[in-house]
Amino acid sequence: MDPPNDWYNLLADLDFELPPDLPPPNGAAGGLSPQIPLSLIRQELSTKRWIAIPDDVVARFRQWRPTPLRRARELEAALGTRATILYKYEGANMAGSHKLNTAVAQAYYYKAAGTKRLAVATGAGQWGTAIAEGCRMFELGCRVYMVRKSYEDKPYRKTIMEMLGAEVVPSPSEETETGRRFLAEGQSSGTLSIALAEAMEETLVEGTRFCAGSAETYSMLHQTVVGLEAMAQCSELGAWPDVVVAGVGAGSNLAGIAFPFLGRALTGEGPEVRLLSVEPAACPKLTKGRYAYDYTDSSEQTPLQKMYTLGSRFTPPSMHAGGLRYHATGKLISALFDRGMIDAVAYRQQEVFASGTLFARCEGIVPAPESAHAVHGAVVAAREADERGESPTILVSLSGHGLFDMSAYEAYSNGTLDDVEVADETIEESLAQLPEVAEPVASAGGRG
Amino acid sequence: MDPPNDWYNLLADLDFELPPDLPPPNGAAGGLSPQIPLSLIRQELSTKRWIAIPDDVVARFRQWRPTPLRRARELEAALGTRATILYKYEGANMAGSHKLNTAVAQAYYYKAAGTKRLAVATGAGQWGTAIAEGCRMFELGCRVYMVRKSYEDKPYRKTIMEMLGAEVVPSPSEETETGRRFLAEGQSSGTLSIALAEAMEETLVEGTRFCAGSAETYSMLHQTVVGLEAMAQCSELGAWPDVVVAGVGAGSNLAGIAFPFLGRALTGEGPEVRLLSVEPAACPKLTKGRYAYDYTDSSEQTPLQKMYTLGSRFTPPSMHAGGLRYHATGKLISALFDRGMIDAVAYRQQEVFASGTLFARCEGIVPAPESAHAVHGAVVAAREADERGESPTILVSLSGHGLFDMSAYEAYSNGTLDDVEVADETIEESLAQLPEVAEPVASAGGRG
Repeated sequence: MDPPNDWYNLLADLDFELPPDLPPPNGAAGGLSPQIPLSLIRQELSTKRWIAIPDDVVARFRQWRPTPLRRARELEAALGTRATILYKYEGANMAGSHKLNTAVAQAYYYKAAGTKRLAVATGAGQWGTAIAEGCRMFELGCRVYMVRKSYEDKPYRKTIMEMLGAEVVPSPSEETETGRRFLAEGQSSGTLSIALAEAMEETLVEGTRFCAGSAETYSMLHQTVVGLEAMAQCSELGAWPDVVVAGVGAGSNLAGIAFPFLGRALTGEGPEVRLLSVEPAACPKLTKGRYAYDYTDSSEQTPLQKMYTLGSRFTPPSMHAGGLRYHATGKLISALFDRGMIDAVAYRQQEVFASGTLFARCEGIVPAPESAHAVHGAVVAAREADERGESPTILVSLSGHGLFDMSAYEAYSNGTLDDVEVADETIEESLAQLPEVAEPVASAGGRG
Repeated sequence: MDPPNDWYNLLADLDFELPPDLPPPNGAAGGLSPQIPLSLIRQELSTKRWIAIPDDVVARFRQWRPTPLRRARELEAALGTRATILYKYEGANMAGSHKLNTAVAQAYYYKAAGTKRLAVATGAGQWGTAIAEGCRMFELGCRVYMVRKSYEDKPYRKTIMEMLGAEVVPSPSEETETGRRFLAEGQSSGTLSIALAEAMEETLVEGTRFCAGSAETYSMLHQTVVGLEAMAQCSELGAWPDVVVAGVGAGSNLAGIAFPFLGRALTGEGPEVRLLSVEPAACPKLTKGRYAYDYTDSSEQTPLQKMYTLGSRFTPPSMHAGGLRYHATGKLISALFDRGMIDAVAYRQQEVFASGTLFARCEGIVPAPESAHAVHGAVVAAREADERGESPTILVSLSGHGLFDMSAYEAYSNGTLDDVEVADETIEESLAQLPEVAEPVASAGGRG
């Protein structure tokens, strides 16, 4: 089997448009558009169903794609479930996660647009490692602002990025105005939105462009290689998912594995499919956030996007799935959730690590904490189906390996893992600070 | 491409026999044979060229095999060499190394022979992780004696073995007579041969068998899946190696990738091929050891094997390639070296990590320190070839990933990595303690 030659664009098959972005109410002139290559902006806005993957990117994909799709027979047996559990494993590449799929593509397009150097933000380090690898492939310089909590907890991620030639800076840092402001406020553990703001500021350096990460709609497009492969592999197995489950930070992981299946269902070419988002109880944007216009980072200089958000000033408590510590979901995921096309659940990390440990024991792969959320979602879904006497096929996005997260697994097995959750009043306080804007269109029929 | 259905047995194509094992001179009644399933002993002694891989083992192989063979184009460019450098990557499985190839097979055969539980020894933890995974697959209990230095330096390896259901004990331990003896002597960092002796002692427990690891001739047989796949992949690429290079602890890694090519050369079906063993300067058995009868572990209870050895009482200085800290090479590798059919070089760890870091930067995979030895061997071979005006094809065994060795890479990049080597007089002292035995046959024509 070869990796796909085209990405699948869900926008082609939706009967609604995404709410437009709005300029920030403080009148800031900035914004992402001058940063992002036109080729990526075109992808963001395209409604073509298939978008050709550049040959140079397909050639890179061949180094680790297609990735395996397997049936978790031993997990099924351990659960005693009648559900069929399949998983698609994206962890067997240098970056250790699905994020490399879009990092390669983004690095390619930035290089083609004449960029010399990228500035990026990373939470747990998976995006940073992926983009460092993408920059290495296409010979771009790379500076990574890494959330300080992860920088300190996961020194190996930093080392690996440096080995790939990237420069890694803990955020908040002394290197930017934003960083110095948050340090002065006593905010030292950092968040992804602060790191994003710092990376944005870095683009004042000549030849340097900001590279957003994985919340953008074009990142979700790039990730569809996962779902397209999974679709071919499911056909080969004679199986088809009733439920597709993924851990959700901004949502590109869920988008990548699920959109091709959702597209088939929307066009009547395939059966109905349930998309299940699993988020941490420490950062529950879909289950407890609001569908509203908000900033994508802490700089408050970028256009507002309509998203499910906890507020861009929300600081999630420290927990191990750093990749899920983002205050909002991407606008496409948010719009689908608003229309009831995605279900969402939130779990605490102890139960998540219990399922992650069970999965490792049964299937021989240690899931990244982010992926363990998806595993736990599948475990719960299987149990619920058993109670109802149903036997669904559940497809899990095993988006990355947890080999850099062994200390968290060790803490879980020692009984010393914090079971963090965020209080409702904290969320209310944060939501009260959302920017006030007049909405251009009513989101009729939604949950918002 | 499918994984192979048969292992290749080099013994079929050799025009000499291996020197027989001898009973230990102290009259110990023990020995490995009662521990090892007859099926494996038959493989050890067989001279059949092809040995069928059990279907259950092939089915497990399909989870991660065939493994990729790639051309290291960016490494070639960085070196400015005219040599072609290919590498076969065995790190993308749960165990993180080639060792899983034989661990799966051994666990299968022990299970088939009615064993309930295995006791094993591990250096850096790669064999331990591999056998823990094999035991998990075939539902065997597993106790791992792990060299204490690695146990302390690599806690994540321990955690991962425990997650796979194994029990991990630092060696020397208080659990065995051997362990207590070495602890009493103040030997606390441990060696692989002490850990082996402890695991042997563990078999006094009912239903428990000792599982030797990767020095046995049948382990080398099992590893030939690597070389057989590489041969097919080289054919596809239209390339064929002039040199095959691997890091050597006991030698199964070199055996696995190189024996199929060597066999072709011996039978005249393929061109000549140079086998290049790379060992650490801290444990230079081929380059500085003696071809003599010696114990395979520190218990001094097992049959003597004729091997290149530094003496079973030799304690290599601490260094990061724990998998290469074994005092001898397996008897088959030793016999081939004695006959000039293998070349050997030894390098210090600083130059090894320099090449490992360069490889990671160029090719996007962090090599295990053991594998970095092979990479460095290839780098030196390429430079030497350039000086001679030659342009050979060099095939490197990239036997494992270094994601659990980031602290060593960090130390290298900080300039704090010890550059250990062992003094000639230390080796002489150790060799003076080799057991005295009458050799049953003269090894005419050898270097010994």
